[in-house]
Amino acid sequence: MQRYIEKVKTLHESLPYIRKFYGKTIVIKYGGNAMVDEELKKSFVMDVILMKYVGLNPVIVHGGGPQIGEMLKKLGKKSRFVGGIRVTDKDTMDVVEMVLVGKINKEIVGLINHYGGRAVGLSGMDGGLIKARKLKIKGESMGMAGEVADINPSVIEGLERDKFIPVIAPVGVGDDGRTYNINADMVAGEIAASLKAIKLILLTDIKGVLDKKKRLISAMNVTKTRGLIKDGTASGGMIPKLKCCLDAIKKGVLKTHIIDGRVEHAVLLEVFTDAGIGTEMYKDVRKKEKR
Amino acid sequence: MQRYIEKVKTLHESLPYIRKFYGKTIVIKYGGNAMVDEELKKSFVMDVILMKYVGLNPVIVHGGGPQIGEMLKKLGKKSRFVGGIRVTDKDTMDVVEMVLVGKINKEIVGLINHYGGRAVGLSGMDGGLIKARKLKIKGESMGMAGEVADINPSVIEGLERDKFIPVIAPVGVGDDGRTYNINADMVAGEIAASLKAIKLILLTDIKGVLDKKKRLISAMNVTKTRGLIKDGTASGGMIPKLKCCLDAIKKGVLKTHIIDGRVEHAVLLEVFTDAGIGTEMYKDVRKKEKR
Amino acid sequence: MQRYIEKVKTLHESLPYIRKFYGKTIVIKYGGNAMVDEELKKSFVMDVILMKYVGLNPVIVHGGGPQIGEMLKKLGKKSRFVGGIRVTDKDTMDVVEMVLVGKINKEIVGLINHYGGRAVGLSGMDGGLIKARKLKIKGESMGMAGEVADINPSVIEGLERDKFIPVIAPVGVGDDGRTYNINADMVAGEIAASLKAIKLILLTDIKGVLDKKKRLISAMNVTKTRGLIKDGTASGGMIPKLKCCLDAIKKGVLKTHIIDGRVEHAVLLEVFTDAGIGTEMYKDVRKKEKR
Amino acid sequence: MQRYIEKVKTLHESLPYIRKFYGKTIVIKYGGNAMVDEELKKSFVMDVILMKYVGLNPVIVHGGGPQIGEMLKKLGKKSRFVGGIRVTDKDTMDVVEMVLVGKINKEIVGLINHYGGRAVGLSGMDGGLIKARKLKIKGESMGMAGEVADINPSVIEGLERDKFIPVIAPVGVGDDGRTYNINADMVAGEIAASLKAIKLILLTDIKGVLDKKKRLISAMNVTKTRGLIKDGTASGGMIPKLKCCLDAIKKGVLKTHIIDGRVEHAVLLEVFTDAGIGTEMYKDVRKKEKR
Amino acid sequence: MQRYIEKVKTLHESLPYIRKFYGKTIVIKYGGNAMVDEELKKSFVMDVILMKYVGLNPVIVHGGGPQIGEMLKKLGKKSRFVGGIRVTDKDTMDVVEMVLVGKINKEIVGLINHYGGRAVGLSGMDGGLIKARKLKIKGESMGMAGEVADINPSVIEGLERDKFIPVIAPVGVGDDGRTYNINADMVAGEIAASLKAIKLILLTDIKGVLDKKKRLISAMNVTKTRGLIKDGTASGGMIPKLKCCLDAIKKGVLKTHIIDGRVEHAVLLEVFTDAGIGTEMYKDVRKKEKR
Amino acid sequence: MQRYIEKVKTLHESLPYIRKFYGKTIVIKYGGNAMVDEELKKSFVMDVILMKYVGLNPVIVHGGGPQIGEMLKKLGKKSRFVGGIRVTDKDTMDVVEMVLVGKINKEIVGLINHYGGRAVGLSGMDGGLIKARKLKIKGESMGMAGEVADINPSVIEGLERDKFIPVIAPVGVGDDGRTYNINADMVAGEIAASLKAIKLILLTDIKGVLDKKKRLISAMNVTKTRGLIKDGTASGGMIPKLKCCLDAIKKGVLKTHIIDGRVEHAVLLEVFTDAGIGTEMYKDVRKKEKR
Repeated sequence: MQRYIEKVKTLHESLPYIRKFYGKTIVIKYGGNAMVDEELKKSFVMDVILMKYVGLNPVIVHGGGPQIGEMLKKLGKKSRFVGGIRVTDKDTMDVVEMVLVGKINKEIVGLINHYGGRAVGLSGMDGGLIKARKLKIKGESMGMAGEVADINPSVIEGLERDKFIPVIAPVGVGDDGRTYNINADMVAGEIAASLKAIKLILLTDIKGVLDKKKRLISAMNVTKTRGLIKDGTASGGMIPKLKCCLDAIKKGVLKTHIIDGRVEHAVLLEVFTDAGIGTEMYKDVRKKEKR
Repeated sequence: MQRYIEKVKTLHESLPYIRKFYGKTIVIKYGGNAMVDEELKKSFVMDVILMKYVGLNPVIVHGGGPQIGEMLKKLGKKSRFVGGIRVTDKDTMDVVEMVLVGKINKEIVGLINHYGGRAVGLSGMDGGLIKARKLKIKGESMGMAGEVADINPSVIEGLERDKFIPVIAPVGVGDDGRTYNINADMVAGEIAASLKAIKLILLTDIKGVLDKKKRLISAMNVTKTRGLIKDGTASGGMIPKLKCCLDAIKKGVLKTHIIDGRVEHAVLLEVFTDAGIGTEMYKDVRKKEKR
Repeated sequence: MQRYIEKVKTLHESLPYIRKFYGKTIVIKYGGNAMVDEELKKSFVMDVILMKYVGLNPVIVHGGGPQIGEMLKKLGKKSRFVGGIRVTDKDTMDVVEMVLVGKINKEIVGLINHYGGRAVGLSGMDGGLIKARKLKIKGESMGMAGEVADINPSVIEGLERDKFIPVIAPVGVGDDGRTYNINADMVAGEIAASLKAIKLILLTDIKGVLDKKKRLISAMNVTKTRGLIKDGTASGGMIPKLKCCLDAIKKGVLKTHIIDGRVEHAVLLEVFTDAGIGTEMYKDVRKKEKR
Repeated sequence: MQRYIEKVKTLHESLPYIRKFYGKTIVIKYGGNAMVDEELKKSFVMDVILMKYVGLNPVIVHGGGPQIGEMLKKLGKKSRFVGGIRVTDKDTMDVVEMVLVGKINKEIVGLINHYGGRAVGLSGMDGGLIKARKLKIKGESMGMAGEVADINPSVIEGLERDKFIPVIAPVGVGDDGRTYNINADMVAGEIAASLKAIKLILLTDIKGVLDKKKRLISAMNVTKTRGLIKDGTASGGMIPKLKCCLDAIKKGVLKTHIIDGRVEHAVLLEVFTDAGIGTEMYKDVRKKEKR
Repeated sequence: MQRYIEKVKTLHESLPYIRKFYGKTIVIKYGGNAMVDEELKKSFVMDVILMKYVGLNPVIVHGGGPQIGEMLKKLGKKSRFVGGIRVTDKDTMDVVEMVLVGKINKEIVGLINHYGGRAVGLSGMDGGLIKARKLKIKGESMGMAGEVADINPSVIEGLERDKFIPVIAPVGVGDDGRTYNINADMVAGEIAASLKAIKLILLTDIKGVLDKKKRLISAMNVTKTRGLIKDGTASGGMIPKLKCCLDAIKKGVLKTHIIDGRVEHAVLLEVFTDAGIGTEMYKDVRKKEKR
Repeated sequence: MQRYIEKVKTLHESLPYIRKFYGKTIVIKYGGNAMVDEELKKSFVMDVILMKYVGLNPVIVHGGGPQIGEMLKKLGKKSRFVGGIRVTDKDTMDVVEMVLVGKINKEIVGLINHYGGRAVGLSGMDGGLIKARKLKIKGESMGMAGEVADINPSVIEGLERDKFIPVIAPVGVGDDGRTYNINADMVAGEIAASLKAIKLILLTDIKGVLDKKKRLISAMNVTKTRGLIKDGTASGGMIPKLKCCLDAIKKGVLKTHIIDGRVEHAVLLEVFTDAGIGTEMYKDVRKKEKR
């Protein structure tokens, strides 16, 4: 019995969070280990379902997983990378899209449905959701690697009204009708902005943002974030993630979170507890809200 | 951190219950110690608010508390009892109604609002909610003690649509326009039936229904319940409660629960855990559902 | 037959008023003799029901009646008054609230329902309707006597949409969760402002506002009203009523009326005839509308 | 002042009628003197507007007036009559339709609007409202005189939802696309049936239905009505009116009324007073309702 | 089979137009030969029905036809004309209204319904659609000839929502409650403005607007139009039509068209093909859109 | 100009079809050559967009194309066939799903959007659309080849309400959470039944159903169809198609069509012309409707 009493007390501890986020949209970029490890997959999917049931509106944007590389390998395709981005030729893009939309997306949708949620998968093609344009780095075309030109969220809004959980593959469509592979963090950020989400959460395979002494920064404002980039504290793959967060906040998202997807129930821990597990970023102007 | 992980796991354990009862109405008779002890009051109110937030529709029917007796005493009024029911003269009824509607009801409404819910108090007068008729026991009139003649739930339905928690005082109005004091269990049962609730929960000051060896019966069907009454295992104040439950089930309520209001979070323990804490009654025909 | 023809002609005379006020909200402070005399009670209730049926939205705010004093007397409680306001200790407030909410409010609701309307009683607690703060007079606390801090009219709006007549007891709730007794005229004025009512009607036990020669003033603007207060023509209990009306007009109520509740059908006479029976107050800027 | 008090009392006397008919549809055949005399025209129009404002849904079907005869005369057209019905050739029908739809209908619409209502005129052509077929009497075609084949009330329902008063000219359209002149009583009866009206009122130029001793029958059931036809008490133009009423009641209209349109405010007198002024017909089965 | 394939290809050619005008309102002034010739009548009516089915909202305003003159002649009435406008005395107006509303309007409604559409006829009287005022030319009253004072489009909007095609007779009602005959082009222009129509189409009996060399101008902007009036290229009856179009564009109508109603399917040819058949007028500021 | 007049006449010829199918759902199985040839692809997509714009609700179910075989070949996978059905092992199913959902489905969605429609792609996974079960032929499991167990059309209904065109890949999900490849004809038939479609159209690479003398049968009822199967006239791949049609008709689809997808605009030719181009099947009981 004692166990049950503890359980019920715990339920009550989450009430303030439920109340705070009731009816609000939270966009989650899902990727990395959390998409590979079976236990983490289940814990992520359960977090999403729970959030939906208690009245929040989670929207999932997923990245590519190791399956893309595997499939390209099986097909004997090799890729060149520029600045960490795959230079995607038309044939490669076909494979990327097939794996993202036809395999990874459907696996996530299937898992959510299997555990009791109601998900619908979307690519940026569906309902004209993601308009893309060619990505150029230092003037060089990345082939079919693109960036977000515009978001038309009407298909997501319809699904939310019907109580479905949207799961989105980061593929956009250009004016030429061709599809482009877009960085999933960027897609998540732009969709969060267009849906006026209160939170953008990026699942990563690191603990969060670290300071010079390699300690986790649990919260920081925009100014501090810019400082970390400037003074070189943040480097490598962290920089585009920070820029993505800065951009989302500039476009009206309330808070962004870079969290450790290798921790079970990372999303719920970040959203429903005081401690949080990663790094939260917030606007300058306001005094920092108590987390 | 470990504590938080436990917490989140606990949240997930309640998901099956949230899903099962999503959008359903649960009528709770609130009375006894749970209305007196400060800790129990808060724990009850928090349970109700939590249920509302995660998508259930709790409806509270409260009984009278010691305040009625106190007030009658202060006013020097004495009451005669027949079969456990106060023979209520017109003057006494005035005091009863004032305390029920003007004090106890408002205290509950106030507590719910104070802890973050949105409650509206109702007496049976409001919107013609409870039609009453004179109660007669063995042909003797009980004065202004009445029984339910009819329920018009439209005012409750309006409040539920607007996301308020209805809190109901067990006072009905007769064809003569006069008010009658009605047993709160009976009112809860009739309201549960008229709202097609899935659960009727009676908070009591005992552990639940006991068998001949004084062990708690955690679940029983209608036939077994009738047996307990017939063979004298159930006696005293338990008999009207059992009859009230039998009647509610007959009128379409899915399950009824007699639980121990002296346990903190009794309502949530009964609704959101496998163990439950009291006695559940269910229809004969169906195989017993797994709790 | 002639009688019937007269009757039908009379009906037609009220058409212009019905048209003018169709779908509009009228807040009526109900108090004084009209709440005591049986004939006047019935005539008031019938006026309210008729207005509702022909398409207006009456909202009733009632004061306390002699029942509060009686009950305090029965309980041997004595009250101190400062500036006409009862210094209300916690015990007294309990009695005041019980009588206001549990007795007077329910009597009015009961009468309206009995004569064919559909009323729902509310205290300021219900749905967070009236937020109160402590009233201080010359720095002295009046105990549980409060004033309106804020109105949240959503519960009234829900009831109006469902075609109920709201009947409101002048009790507010403070940030501390405690209840405060508030002057009913003030409550009526603030509710009229928050509902953007076209009329605020105060029922009194006098003929209306009198000029220096003790003649009834049937209509006056804001400037004239201020003059009456300044030059001492208005005095005593009339001053807070006039201030209440001035405040309501400032907050957007179109017209306010101080009328004689001792006259049968006073409300309908004021609203549905050219003559009116009391004193109407209107904004300065506009030319006086023809009544 | 006394006059005003009388007035208000009168208003209250009509409340039971307002309540009884609230939201219900009443179809009125408007014709005869009430369409000619200026005072009667205004009194009729005011009755209709008042009914609309207090929540009833009047629907007007008008007949032809002397204007048809005048116009035919001006044009030098002569008509043959069979069984009281004008044998209408194509040219005559053109004139009939023009006068009914382009003159009489618009006059009524104009009067209602002028006195503060909101009317829209319809012929049976509009929205396919009235399907007609050729009327044959003893096998002889009456030319363009028709009878109702079907009613499609959707255009009326749209106007009622938008709070307009529909005013209908008794012209129907055949399968051949040609227009037919139909008896207005018949049209009113069929429209009342298709709208499930609670009342059908036929304005006439007589006092109502008389018994053998020429005394007004103020109420009678279906059986008695059939008797009056059978035994010859009813004769001439009264017979089709009685048949029309019998038919409407058979098709579900609650009550029908044959009243004297020469009396000012005849409609309101019949609907809003106990006395009534004409003859009411009701179903057999039920005990006669108290008027 | 080839024929069918051609047919289907043709269907596809109209898709861009369907898409462009989907859900938009187009007001068409219907008059002249197109109202007289049987083939043209049918072709016009079919065009309107087709537009309605593929998602456009056509609104028809018709003029008077030869029937007015015929009827006046039959009745021996003679009319005086000033500046091309009939000086309409009260008797003449009666005839004009009867023919417009009771004959011409109903014929159009009947034809639309006969060929499978769902039309409802309106005069400016219905629902207070067209408020008129006396027309004066050089200070001289034109009798009952009026001009538009105001449009209240609520009755049209209700009919559009219910998927009816509104057909409007150009008769307005003055403050005095009397009806006025108004030029149908003007009525069409004002209704187009009040409905925020994207197109106003005037059917005429000429090819369109001609330049100095008598060649058809297929498109021109506001400045060029003003020039044509100023330099005398446009003259006679064309001038009020051009002014009407200029006025409509000034009030927000996107484009206006003066087209040749003597061509079968003139309306559809203008709306659904690149070529168009008459003269289109558009705003100055914008670059000319490709037709 | 003549060309335009022809065009407009053609438009009018399609009106009766537009009217007949307005607001109705038509399910089209898209496959074969029409999915391969660039011209045919465009003509199909344009047909679908046009139907949507003129008020019909097309729903597309596509089959697999040569891309599946190509991809399997590239990956060095070989398949065994039983009764024409690929025995699909888990690895093969992964490839099948990726190509169907991630490539073919998105190509169709992309084409529709490119040419001006608004499509959303779905697999049977999305929103729990298609529940599958293992397909067994003569007791032998076909691996991941499945058949439809149940359809949950709520996600389609939401998309139709929001005016999107649903494009569905024939992949279902089993109770085990695994995906199954299902014959697209069967999926189309079941979806047509669950949506109460009026038409099911199967695009094939043959002319339609042929009689013994190899002449095209343009229409036949259920009895005749059964005869063709029994007497061997129909054989091979035609038999499952006929059975699929018979089943759809039994479940309430009004008509089914087997048409030649190699003809440009085959769908529109079948739906919008008298001739049709393939074989239509209809219920026995009714007299054959005139096509």
